[in-house]
Amino acid sequence: MRKVAESTVRRLSLYLRFLEEFEGQGIGTVSSGALASRGGTTSAQVRKDLSFFGSFGKRGLGYPVPELADRMRDILGLKRRYRVGMIGAGKIGSALVQYRGFKQRGFDIVAIFDSDPSKIGSQWNGLTVQDIGTLEREVSRQSLDMAVLVIPGDVAQAVTDRLVALHVKAILNFAPVQLAVPDDVVVKTVNLALELETLSYALANR
Amino acid sequence: MRKVAESTVRRLSLYLRFLEEFEGQGIGTVSSGALASRGGTTSAQVRKDLSFFGSFGKRGLGYPVPELADRMRDILGLKRRYRVGMIGAGKIGSALVQYRGFKQRGFDIVAIFDSDPSKIGSQWNGLTVQDIGTLEREVSRQSLDMAVLVIPGDVAQAVTDRLVALHVKAILNFAPVQLAVPDDVVVKTVNLALELETLSYALANR
Repeated sequence: MRKVAESTVRRLSLYLRFLEEFEGQGIGTVSSGALASRGGTTSAQVRKDLSFFGSFGKRGLGYPVPELADRMRDILGLKRRYRVGMIGAGKIGSALVQYRGFKQRGFDIVAIFDSDPSKIGSQWNGLTVQDIGTLEREVSRQSLDMAVLVIPGDVAQAVTDRLVALHVKAILNFAPVQLAVPDDVVVKTVNLALELETLSYALANR
Repeated sequence: MRKVAESTVRRLSLYLRFLEEFEGQGIGTVSSGALASRGGTTSAQVRKDLSFFGSFGKRGLGYPVPELADRMRDILGLKRRYRVGMIGAGKIGSALVQYRGFKQRGFDIVAIFDSDPSKIGSQWNGLTVQDIGTLEREVSRQSLDMAVLVIPGDVAQAVTDRLVALHVKAILNFAPVQLAVPDDVVVKTVNLALELETLSYALANR
């Protein structure tokens, strides 16, 4: 498979959402135009995005919804569930643990860690907050596939280094730093204040 | 000013964070290499990013920290405060309202709206959750500059259309849909489940 741009992967995720809505409504086939209008893009873009992954649908008949949704789940690695460890039991962590969107897409938060003695041992959505000192033991015991970092920037790299040593290959990072990882580890950084700054930049420079 | 890529704007936000750390430590000048190593990029990239905005620093002497930080704040539109309305009083909204990073960067959440009668009137971090039906009155009364959408995807476009009609020019969208807006309105969409899917995609395709 060719290397696919992240923007393409993001659109595939959106198409999958729309396809699942169509499935729920019992719609059997969908045109690239319908997918495009739901996704705020063009039908040419939809056809181009889907062409990366082989041939779908017949000209004039549209795409078969269940088959295309199934292929999207396959492509996006969503035919299995992932075991996710949350590092940091703060306010954002609390919201994420309760966020239904993760579980719906196959991401199960199965462990939470913190270094704050006042948090360790407390119950969060059915999980006990564990001492970050036990990370080395728990990552392998719990077979964690991914980690979500919701910790201060000044400790994020050190925790990342520990996760890398434990063979965690995927990290969703909410700390406001760029993390250094080996090539076989994938990091996605979400910086909420920075998202607002792209808005203030746009307001200030138009 | 030339049109600047969003990835550049994001790096500028990061540089500003590092510069403010350096300022706090009383460091007067900084090299592009030091900024690069903190940002996980190269000194050539730092020099290129900063060159968009005029001439900074002297060769061999590094960049003057306070002046550069000040110029970054100017560029990013951070020399003023923004009045932000939160639309949706759910779990993610709750975390965002309490998130210190927004206020620190000049984004004040000054109003919260919901359509759920059980939430309307409740107190959130010193704010009273207001009926979304009062949006038209409150946006102008409160002079809102930006809106944060933390509402279901199926109602997000309708609320966006109302915000656009009310001359709100910047929207941070957490709903899992692409919003259609006029050219003079800027939207930034954050989809947390989709961020995890870029990770599952990477794990499944390597």
